[in-house]
Amino acid sequence: MSEIVSSVAAPEPRALVKKIKEYHPPLGDRSGIRLDFNENTFACSPKVLDALQRVTRGDLTRYPERTPVEAIVAAKLGIQPSQALLTNGVDEAIHVLCQAYLDKDDELLLPVPTYTMYGVYASATEGRLVEVPAGEDFQFPLEALLARITPKTKLIAIANPNSPTGQVISREDILKVVAAVPHAMVLIDEAYYHFYGQSVMDLVGRVPNVIVARTFSKVYGLAGLRLGLLAADESAMQWLRRVISPYSVNALALACLPPALEDDAYLDWYVNEVRQAREKFTVALTRMGVRWWPSQANFVLTNIGAKHAAFSKAMHARGVLVRDRSSDPGCDGCVRITIGTREHTAAGIAAMEAVLNEIEWTGERA
Amino acid sequence: MSEIVSSVAAPEPRALVKKIKEYHPPLGDRSGIRLDFNENTFACSPKVLDALQRVTRGDLTRYPERTPVEAIVAAKLGIQPSQALLTNGVDEAIHVLCQAYLDKDDELLLPVPTYTMYGVYASATEGRLVEVPAGEDFQFPLEALLARITPKTKLIAIANPNSPTGQVISREDILKVVAAVPHAMVLIDEAYYHFYGQSVMDLVGRVPNVIVARTFSKVYGLAGLRLGLLAADESAMQWLRRVISPYSVNALALACLPPALEDDAYLDWYVNEVRQAREKFTVALTRMGVRWWPSQANFVLTNIGAKHAAFSKAMHARGVLVRDRSSDPGCDGCVRITIGTREHTAAGIAAMEAVLNEIEWTGERA
Repeated sequence: MSEIVSSVAAPEPRALVKKIKEYHPPLGDRSGIRLDFNENTFACSPKVLDALQRVTRGDLTRYPERTPVEAIVAAKLGIQPSQALLTNGVDEAIHVLCQAYLDKDDELLLPVPTYTMYGVYASATEGRLVEVPAGEDFQFPLEALLARITPKTKLIAIANPNSPTGQVISREDILKVVAAVPHAMVLIDEAYYHFYGQSVMDLVGRVPNVIVARTFSKVYGLAGLRLGLLAADESAMQWLRRVISPYSVNALALACLPPALEDDAYLDWYVNEVRQAREKFTVALTRMGVRWWPSQANFVLTNIGAKHAAFSKAMHARGVLVRDRSSDPGCDGCVRITIGTREHTAAGIAAMEAVLNEIEWTGERA
Repeated sequence: MSEIVSSVAAPEPRALVKKIKEYHPPLGDRSGIRLDFNENTFACSPKVLDALQRVTRGDLTRYPERTPVEAIVAAKLGIQPSQALLTNGVDEAIHVLCQAYLDKDDELLLPVPTYTMYGVYASATEGRLVEVPAGEDFQFPLEALLARITPKTKLIAIANPNSPTGQVISREDILKVVAAVPHAMVLIDEAYYHFYGQSVMDLVGRVPNVIVARTFSKVYGLAGLRLGLLAADESAMQWLRRVISPYSVNALALACLPPALEDDAYLDWYVNEVRQAREKFTVALTRMGVRWWPSQANFVLTNIGAKHAAFSKAMHARGVLVRDRSSDPGCDGCVRITIGTREHTAAGIAAMEAVLNEIEWTGERA
């Protein structure tokens, strides 16, 4: 040990790094029925596993090449290959967007509550996060958002449908936002598109400041593979391609994506399961006296009230994972519950009925 | 289309983004014998494929969780789990390091030539890249590097063995560098460790400004999976964990890593193949009159001279991919050739003999 002369503490990182919002998703033991992360609660298409079984040792050994698969997904979405960028999950897409557009004091305009990672990645830049609270019942705050646009606005992030609320913004309103900020990129994150059915993907290539995100972690059931997509005009895409690593999407994700994209029947089956289950779930919530908000996604935000933490813990003890969102802006007492297959959702309802009795829940409002 | 009011060009990205070094690896058609990217030229351990065959549809559907696998790899490397961070390839590791430590005008000290991505990711920050040219025959420029250390030095990146040269820096010299910059992190990138056999992994946790990188893309034959590792003192690791995405390493990479780590016999076999093949390859280079530099890695840098481009193209036409490195600093006329199994290397030698005749190569020196 005498060879070692240095024994001071590790050097300090950038001051900025100490201010990055910490994000610790509640992973750990996730055995049970997973109604916490809005994943597909069942599984991906069996055709994906078939493709995986055909992978050879040699395939694992080569650096991945995403260009051919970007052409396949672009064709499926009706856009040009040059307008499609596969990413290591939508997380990397958001990271790349923030890095590409947010300079010192630039503003990311963010209707809240919304997906956590927009704020996390914005906090890793020198830009400023400008939060715009949702309206009553989590309605999209169109007027308030438009009023906050400045020359410093460089990015607006809109999840549609939004999480954790399940609320949507109309196409008409998206166009109003886009038209109001020709100097900023407007991200429309369509992670939950299939449960909603409306998209602005057709604007890609026609409106240069629109960028659409899709994920393969939700309805496709491929969260483990890390696959996201950004779609935008080539004039914007050239910069994103410069920021992203050429190898960030792994070879097995690239091998699994084409069969997943082809299996529309499987997707239709799963979406139909969720829609039926969502209907049954909200009927049950009303019966139980739990306040809930209508959702166009594969989850429902509920207001459990003051006992939200006890509720989530008791659900876990009964083998059903749910997600406490009570610290999200405007979400005091709220718990988000993923809608899965009819079977999984029925199990969720049964657990909820038992738990609300167990914790002596009295239907209080937060 | 009348609904669309905006038709201006896409908004400009940060000024910085336009200056990021573009990196376009020569992917495209890589069929043939791949002596271009320093991958394992054969395949990963068969035990990895066994693990992959056991993956279920449900496994693909869950968000990945890297913590349990970090504990396994830490145990293998003799470090604490808190000192190990799995990354989406070493590329993400370098990206995260640059993002964590390089503020405006901070300096990344870089002995060159070296691995391209240090410079690429540094160029994506507001920091400055300070290149220190290698000495004669690409020797590590210890005195020149020490002379360039300033209070602004925040990161020093040292590949050991280095690419594309195959040269090494001694443990003694690493300790001199580390001792000279207690205010900076010193990355020792041991991507090619197994072909060399010497490591400073034992400094992790004892010297707080040392950070060691390993990759599973080279000897392990898992380039397609995207798996890298950073090892450092917990006081440094806390910041890196704040910058990195919690899900950047995919579930299949995490499933495949433990069996790859266990199969020492396979690794020993492959390293032995490469060592024998490297010896035969350098003997053949001398016989052909091609200048080369001794290498401690799974590649050899050769000086083909003025016809380097024609040479690389003709090798490709004969089904052997090599990597033209003539635009690297101090590498005019140089081509890097990966050493693989004895069989693949023999094929590389045969192609080289034919090609040097074909292009009327006269043994010129760059």
